Amino acid sequence: VPLSEKLLIQRIRRAAGRARGLLTAGIGDDCAVVRMERGQEALVTTDFSLEDVHFRREWHPPNAVGHRCLARGLSDIAAMGGIPRAAFLSLALPADLPQKWVDQFITGLLRLAKRNSVILAGGDTAQSPAGILADIMVLGSVPAGKAILRSGARPGEALYVTGTLGSAADVLNRLRDGEKLRPGTNSHSKHFYPEPRVAVGRFLREKKLATAMIDISDGLSTDLGHICDESKTGATVHADALPASADRDALMLALHGGDEYELLFTADPRRRLPARIAGVPITRIGEITRGRQMKLIRPDGKTEPLKASGWEHFQ
Amino acid sequence: VPLSEKLLIQRIRRAAGRARGLLTAGIGDDCAVVRMERGQEALVTTDFSLEDVHFRREWHPPNAVGHRCLARGLSDIAAMGGIPRAAFLSLALPADLPQKWVDQFITGLLRLAKRNSVILAGGDTAQSPAGILADIMVLGSVPAGKAILRSGARPGEALYVTGTLGSAADVLNRLRDGEKLRPGTNSHSKHFYPEPRVAVGRFLREKKLATAMIDISDGLSTDLGHICDESKTGATVHADALPASADRDALMLALHGGDEYELLFTADPRRRLPARIAGVPITRIGEITRGRQMKLIRPDGKTEPLKASGWEHFQ
Repeated sequence: VPLSEKLLIQRIRRAAGRARGLLTAGIGDDCAVVRMERGQEALVTTDFSLEDVHFRREWHPPNAVGHRCLARGLSDIAAMGGIPRAAFLSLALPADLPQKWVDQFITGLLRLAKRNSVILAGGDTAQSPAGILADIMVLGSVPAGKAILRSGARPGEALYVTGTLGSAADVLNRLRDGEKLRPGTNSHSKHFYPEPRVAVGRFLREKKLATAMIDISDGLSTDLGHICDESKTGATVHADALPASADRDALMLALHGGDEYELLFTADPRRRLPARIAGVPITRIGEITRGRQMKLIRPDGKTEPLKASGWEHFQ
Repeated sequence: VPLSEKLLIQRIRRAAGRARGLLTAGIGDDCAVVRMERGQEALVTTDFSLEDVHFRREWHPPNAVGHRCLARGLSDIAAMGGIPRAAFLSLALPADLPQKWVDQFITGLLRLAKRNSVILAGGDTAQSPAGILADIMVLGSVPAGKAILRSGARPGEALYVTGTLGSAADVLNRLRDGEKLRPGTNSHSKHFYPEPRVAVGRFLREKKLATAMIDISDGLSTDLGHICDESKTGATVHADALPASADRDALMLALHGGDEYELLFTADPRRRLPARIAGVPITRIGEITRGRQMKLIRPDGKTEPLKASGWEHFQ
């Protein structure tokens, strides 16, 4: 893929050229050289975006694939309360992939990067034996010792979620059912162009509001399970409180639907949280409990066990 | 690949558990949290290792694939004079891959990591639609402003290379020709278990000896071209001086053979360099010149243009 590769490197150089300060050297060198501010720790996250695993060419326009590729990494940084700084893209492309696809992929990725003041600082390219393979690495920063971990939840704390839940998974179900969905419309944009909650995560960390945090890309039930595992607690979720947004199967999708880039976090119940942070609604959905069980209080008032059964990608 | 994934995460946790100090948190969290020392800049490099592009399952034992995967990243850090700190592995595996393969792959990777005091600090796993796909990200550090770039060469400087050249590409040729080669034997180890020149790169930076540096994973002629491009210089290489080690086509392989993890660097010709650094021979092979041409002085004394024609992987 000599043309694609050339284009990619050109665009990386151009994008990085604007980013004085953070990147001191390295575009086109063996490594990128990244300046870290004093007193900051580095956050590192890597996420695959594989064709037919994380996206499908017939479902997702290339700029949405590029957007989603970077969104996965930004969301991980947001979940630590960090500030994303630089992204590194490894991209393996089939020999017969149209140049236009690559161009639009990078355009989608760079647009999201720019909105989040993230530079595309390097990466690797190769020819793929089968399908489009992208791996994104995002480097962020956080004041030393201040990253919000999954392990910080304590019994008695309140459980919150950002935004609304279920519509991304709903769109995915409908794509699976063969519906043709246009990416542009508002109600589908959470699937095609998810907005990582970077500003919310940062606010929660700066105001010392969140005690534990995770993004719910694997689905609320699975990711709440991760908080409980790491914090050695249980949790109770109130079905009625969930900000469910899907048209059908709303509760199921809100509880288990994956591919959602909202933040799930815990906080001292005595602290007052704003109803919105950076324009994003914040909803209290339950509590952290002693013991190791997760429970759901159903709309009819009955309690049942809540199983971690988030959906796994497109398989 | 639930089993492989579990194993991978377990082994990452175990490996990282030993690495207090650098990694402050993050194994099993959304991001790894990496502490950078004061006055240090971060070096970041990412490299694919794709089945049938960078390795073949019938040629390379899994521990060699794991070793080579990490070696690519360590070599990039070495080429900046940096110290590798942490590695992040993204691994997509076919559903039918034997667990033993994954286990040996990780063993090979971790053995090289340990010898270089590098921790495997995180990564991503996925099921691969076709073939084994690995992407390694290595995070290193270097004192601010001290990274050795490709752009630092000046006319009149001497050109040096570490180690010997050609045997890795020679082994590759013989594998292509259908020879069965045992990875264990000494003469083949440069192909199967290349040793990134981390200690040499660090020494050259600490002693302020190298003015420009690159690793020659794409072959000497191509990578010398990168130094000339970035430094806006030409170069002359003396064929007689090359530390060629292959049995046949020794000069061709030394000039253009890829998959070599030696360092190519430039230095003030008045500075005396040790004959060996960290046990690795250092050989003067030419000079940096004005103008933008690369030239080869042949064994018969005649001069010819030297074209960047390093070999590209296994295709």
